Formats: sequence, structure tokens, C-alpha cells
Amino acid sequence: MSENKIVFLEQTKMPTHYYNILADLPKPLDPPLNPATKQPATPQELAAIFPMDLIMQEVTQERFIEIPDEVRDLYRLSRPTPLIRAANLEAELQTPAKIYFKYEGANPTGSHKTNTSYAQAYYNKKAGIKKLVTETGAGQWGSALAMACKHFGLECEIFMVKVSYNQKPYRKTFMRLFGATVHASPTNLTNAGRKVLEKDPDSPGSLGIAISEAIEVAVQRDDTNYSLGSVLNHVLLHQTIIGEEARLQMEMLDEYPDVVIGCVGGGSNFAGIAFPFLRDKLNGTKKNLEVIAVEPSSCPSLTKGKFDYDFGDEAGLTPLIKMYTLGHDFIPPKIHAGGLRYHGMAPTISLLYNIGAINAKAYGQLEVFKAAQLFAQCEGIVPAPESSHAVKEVIEQALRCKETGEAKTILFNLSGHGFLDLGAYELYLENLLDNGNSK
Amino acid sequence: MSENKIVFLEQTKMPTHYYNILADLPKPLDPPLNPATKQPATPQELAAIFPMDLIMQEVTQERFIEIPDEVRDLYRLSRPTPLIRAANLEAELQTPAKIYFKYEGANPTGSHKTNTSYAQAYYNKKAGIKKLVTETGAGQWGSALAMACKHFGLECEIFMVKVSYNQKPYRKTFMRLFGATVHASPTNLTNAGRKVLEKDPDSPGSLGIAISEAIEVAVQRDDTNYSLGSVLNHVLLHQTIIGEEARLQMEMLDEYPDVVIGCVGGGSNFAGIAFPFLRDKLNGTKKNLEVIAVEPSSCPSLTKGKFDYDFGDEAGLTPLIKMYTLGHDFIPPKIHAGGLRYHGMAPTISLLYNIGAINAKAYGQLEVFKAAQLFAQCEGIVPAPESSHAVKEVIEQALRCKETGEAKTILFNLSGHGFLDLGAYELYLENLLDNGNSK
Repeated sequence: MSENKIVFLEQTKMPTHYYNILADLPKPLDPPLNPATKQPATPQELAAIFPMDLIMQEVTQERFIEIPDEVRDLYRLSRPTPLIRAANLEAELQTPAKIYFKYEGANPTGSHKTNTSYAQAYYNKKAGIKKLVTETGAGQWGSALAMACKHFGLECEIFMVKVSYNQKPYRKTFMRLFGATVHASPTNLTNAGRKVLEKDPDSPGSLGIAISEAIEVAVQRDDTNYSLGSVLNHVLLHQTIIGEEARLQMEMLDEYPDVVIGCVGGGSNFAGIAFPFLRDKLNGTKKNLEVIAVEPSSCPSLTKGKFDYDFGDEAGLTPLIKMYTLGHDFIPPKIHAGGLRYHGMAPTISLLYNIGAINAKAYGQLEVFKAAQLFAQCEGIVPAPESSHAVKEVIEQALRCKETGEAKTILFNLSGHGFLDLGAYELYLENLLDNGNSK
Repeated sequence: MSENKIVFLEQTKMPTHYYNILADLPKPLDPPLNPATKQPATPQELAAIFPMDLIMQEVTQERFIEIPDEVRDLYRLSRPTPLIRAANLEAELQTPAKIYFKYEGANPTGSHKTNTSYAQAYYNKKAGIKKLVTETGAGQWGSALAMACKHFGLECEIFMVKVSYNQKPYRKTFMRLFGATVHASPTNLTNAGRKVLEKDPDSPGSLGIAISEAIEVAVQRDDTNYSLGSVLNHVLLHQTIIGEEARLQMEMLDEYPDVVIGCVGGGSNFAGIAFPFLRDKLNGTKKNLEVIAVEPSSCPSLTKGKFDYDFGDEAGLTPLIKMYTLGHDFIPPKIHAGGLRYHGMAPTISLLYNIGAINAKAYGQLEVFKAAQLFAQCEGIVPAPESSHAVKEVIEQALRCKETGEAKTILFNLSGHGFLDLGAYELYLENLLDNGNSK
């Protein structure tokens, strides 16, 4: 009972560098292709929507990338986030496993997304950009970008997937508090949006559609760039601050995980916690490390998708990306884990899955909410529906340890809290949620 | 830029004792009176609704009270909370003042209220009680008690002030997730509620009414007790963990506040941050320490109330308490700072104000929300409407320092976050809020 539950890391010990997994992949990523020429997309082609610093981070093979002072300064608003031992959950499950989680909900906007929004806003500001346009699912990413833009004096316009816009009305308010403009996507403001609405006026939207709309707006002006909350190498790179901190915090406990778990939509919070540990697996020092990506069974890109070139968005405005995909026109069911409603998967994670370096699991919405409620009752934190997918797999692992008697050390990323998702929990309590497999 | 913004305190250094200001008051509190006999209420009279451990904490003159292991164990879910320097706000205001805040929103239910809910649930459980009944305003207290009851296996029934019940629907869900039953007060379930509804079927409710309803239910069964989220000595005692931690964190910085600020409804979060520093003022070592309680101008118990004996609830079920009061039948306007809609004030705070040991300020709802938005944009944290009252005074103090050139050290309690109050912020952004002075 008297054991410490939280490991705080002093701000003076906050990591100074991101970890770039491209340096350690056993084979290179297949390059993004220009859809017209089928030739590898050049940095210049990407310059229409991204600043050169981020394009360079997309391709560099350098293993560690220094975090700019201005970004570290913003991280200091909330980082290092706590590493917490879920001791009450362990007791409830009567498992010999030790369960640790990195609590990214402790960040200002309630999720891990500020880790990359600060960096993206900073590099865009540095490049003279005046405005960023983006998509958001459940709103975690939009909130984070709105806050970062406010800080750096950039305008911010956000296409929020319509089903989430309606499910999570407080998210819109949150973004507006930071000065952002928010639309429910698909909109009538873009060709991409209008095309979808012509076919289906009641379209719930998808991240793929919202990305198309945001890119379409961004390319129209030189002083406006597009910003993406997941999938791309540079976005995942910025999230590795999570795992780099977790490594130091686990060291303080003289611990190392047997299993690392994160939920996956585009892959950013998973990469954030997993890549810094996967480094040890890829270089052979921790061959037995198990790394598990957890996705919704209703949007199962890893477990049911195809490993192939596909567009990152619905309208086909992005380069073709080699990834696990359900098809760029796949419209996921209206599950409340809006951040996981993406047809594809980050190329790095796709490759790691394809070569067997990581595993994947898929769960239905109901079992995920049930796991989330148990976690909340034990640890006091109501997890975001996205993060609850990781919680579900953690509980499965812990129960397996109970059967086998193995005292595994499990580490997972609690990527965000669910204060703004309580509408979904209300439906769960009222037995009005389905498993997410019906449209 | 490179200065640290957050001071974490290791869990091994978490304070082991609460601070009891009764030991240091320059004169004793006037005792609570039995309304029938006008004689001091005896501990036995209170035993109908409180366990003896808490009744003893209500009256003990012992300066430091040990925190039970079981409660400390729960504190370790989130405590010590961070002490944060609001460096971005300082820069925005161009003030020479140094602004620090204790972030109690980092606690599981998003406010300081778990500091006492754990303790109250623990002592009731220890006394063999099976169920707790309580009131809640904005829902911070109800959420905290629901969580604590779930942990200790107690039933929990909550009367939530109707206006807040409607303004903050996610709070009900939060409490239900932890197994609590929640009613919108006034209800038809109690005599107190029915009496109010007879006079005014559209009554928005008040904390005073909700307390009456909860007490009425609690006294009906021997295995059921009442639990209060503020006002009483033992409740404020439990909150001193905030200031005790803050003292240690300020010491780590070699700092001591010139000004300590907190918002006040019943007074618990204010007492939590202020009492451990007031100790130094009362014993003469820090004579110049300024301590400021901030209340809504629409519910101004300290700045406009009378220092007199009054009931703690609407129906007159509590003992008579000597305090600043607007009258126990005062129904405050429907401001969104539901936790501050209380007609009275903690007896200890009332006495301290009466003898001039602390000051008080009152602000209107609109200026408070404006301050809150500025704070959010600078520090990334959206404050609860209650805590925003403290923020407003902090900004006033910082701007005064800018005029005078004084580099004061300001410490305030950011008692809770506003994730579940975004409905109010939406109204603010849409110019639909008034200053809170109309019913």
C-alpha cells in the first residue's frame, strides 16, 4: 500500500531529442509516390503544404533529432507527463502482472497531440506561414493545433469529422476558445466535401474526407499550410518524447517492459510510446519485447487491411503511401473513438507489422467501454474511447498473466482522458451503444 | 525560456499530516448551536449524520492531524499535484510579478474535491456506514464522492443543484460511471424539496436546498450518513494537503508568496491553499502575507453578507453556524460557477475575515470568463468557472505590479479544470452570458 504510484521526471531531465525510427528499420520504407507519374514524390512536391524543416524530418535517417528550444519551452507546460502504476487495477484483476501507464491526458488539451502540434506550428511559423488548416476526428488533434497556433500567432482552420462534431460538442468550443474556426466535415466549402455530400447528404464523414478538405483549402494560398495529426513520419517522430520519457521513468524504477501497448488510428500515440522501446528490439538487445497495436474491430486496418499503396485521404490529393489500408473510400462505422476512424496506417507502423516486429489486436466498441469503466473505477481516470482500446488489451494481458502466473511488466499509453467523451459513456450506461460493427 | 515551469514533488515527500487552523486562531470559533435550545450542539447531536472520527476532527485543537494510510494511498493516484509557474501569462501581462499556481485539476475527478472525499468515505467505512448522501453544485464534489464511495464499497446518492444539472450534463454521467445515483434538486423525494417546488416549481435550486434534501435522506437510516463537500472544519482540514504541498514546492524554489489567492463558495479550496500559509501570518512570522478570497459578485457572502448565526441549509436542518451569510433562503442567480452558489461561508474563513487576517474581492461572471480565456490561451488549461474567479484576481494583482513595478510572488489555487464546463464557455463565446447579477 505504501509503494509509490507515480514517477515524476524533473523538467531538467526531460529528453532533448526525438527518436527517429527510420534510422533503425531493417529495410527502408517504400517511398510515397506521385499518383500521376507513379514516381517517388519529391520534397519539392510536398513543399506546397509543408515547411521544408518538416519535409526533411519526414525523410532524414538521423537517429536522434534535437527538439527546438521553443518547443521544449511549450512542453514544459505539462511535460514530463507522469508514469503511473495502475496498482488498484492490478489488485482488482488479482494479476501478478505489473501495469504502468504513461498519462498523456495530463497535457493541456487532454491528449498526446500537443507533442506534435507545438512542433508543427513552430516550424511553420519559422517558415513564414500565417495559417494552418487541418482535419480532426474526435477533436484531440484539432484542440492541440488550435492551442499551438494561438501560441505562435497563426490562424487555424479545422475540418472536424461530422459524426464526432455532433457526438462531442464541447470539442468545438475548446478549439474556438483558442481562436480556431471549426467546420463539420464534409462541408460545402470544398470540392472534396461537395462531392461526398452529392453522393450521400447524410455522410457521417471520415478522417480521409476531412483530410481532403483541409488539403484543398491549404493548397489555395502560399501563406497557408496543411498540418496532419498522425500517420506521417515527422508526426510520429514528435510523439517519441512519450517513450523517451517513459524509458527514463522505467529506469528510475529499475524496470523494463515485457509488453508495450498503444491504440492505433493513424498510429501516432502508439508510435510515441512504442518506437523508443522498439529501438532495443530492432537492434537486438531486447529481442523478446512484445509490442501490440490495438485497433477497433470496426476499422481494422492492420488486422484486416491490405499492405499496399493507397491514398492518405478520400479524394486522392495526397501521394500514394505504402501502408495497411481498408481502401481510401472506406467510411468507418460511427464509433465514438473518432480518432481511430482512419482507413490507413502510418507507413512505419505498417512496415513493422509486416515484418513481424509488432503485433495487432482488434476489439469491439462495447468490450472497450466496459474495460474503460473498470479502469476508471480503479484508477479514477476516465480514458478517452481511443485509449480505452489499449486498456482493453492491457486487461486481457493481465488476466492471461493471472492464468499463467507470469509477472509480466506491462506498459501502455493512456493517450488521453475522456472528459469530453462523456456523451459516449452516457450512451454506454444507457445500453445504447452497439459494438461498432453496424453503419 | 529555459527555466522550469513545473515543480513536481516526489510521492515519498508528500505531507503526512493535515494542518488544523483551529490550533492557531487568535480567538475560538463561536460554537454551532442547536436551533431549538440555542445551546452549543453536542458531538452526540451530530452523530446522526457524521462518524465520530470526523466529528472529533471538527473540534480538535491539535495542530497537525495524521493522514490515514488508506487515504494517503488514494492521494498517490494523483498527488502531489504540480506547482506550475504561469510564465506565459506573466509574459502576456508584461508584469514583474511571479505567478505560481497549484493545479488541483490534475486530480482524477478534475478538482481538489477528492482530497476530502477519500477521507470522508474512509472514516465512514471504518464506522460501519453503508451509504453516503450528499449535495453537489457544479458536480465537482459529487464526482469526487462518487469515486471515493466506489473505492470503499459504499453506496452513494447525490442531490445535484438543478441549474447545474442542466448546465453540465456530463457531470451526471461521470458520477454514474462510478455507480452513484444522481437527482436534480429540488426533487419530489424529500419534504425539503417538495416545499421549495410548491412555492416555485421552476426553482433552479441552490446548494442550501440540496443540502437540506441530502440531510433529510441521510437521517432516515442508521447505516446512512451525510457528507458535505465544504464549509465544515473537517472538510477544510482535509484540503490543507494542497497548501502543505505548496509550501514544500515553494521551498524547493526558495520562494515564499507575498499574496495567496483562492476562490470561495463554501471555502474549501481557498482554505486548502491558504491555511498552511496563514499559519505563518497568525504566529507572526509572516505578518505581511496577503491572503485574498474571491467570490462572485452575484453571491457575495463575504463582501456583502452579515456575520451572524444562520443555518447551513435552506430548510433549517443543520445547527446554527456563525458565519458570513446572505440568508439561508437566498437563491443565487444561475451563474455557471455552480460551486460558488452558496449563501454562507465556512466559520473559520468567516472569523479570519472578520478579524482582518484575510481580504475578499468579488467579480462578475463576464469579467471572470474573460480572464479565464486569457489564462487558457497562455497556459493551455481551461479553468473551471469557480477557479476562474481566482484567476481574475491574479490578473488584477499582476497588472497592479506592472504599474507599481513591484515583483510580487503570487500563489493561487487553480482548483479545477473546465473540461466539463465548456457549455458555459460556448455561451460566453456566443455573447450569451450575463454578469450573473440577474436571476
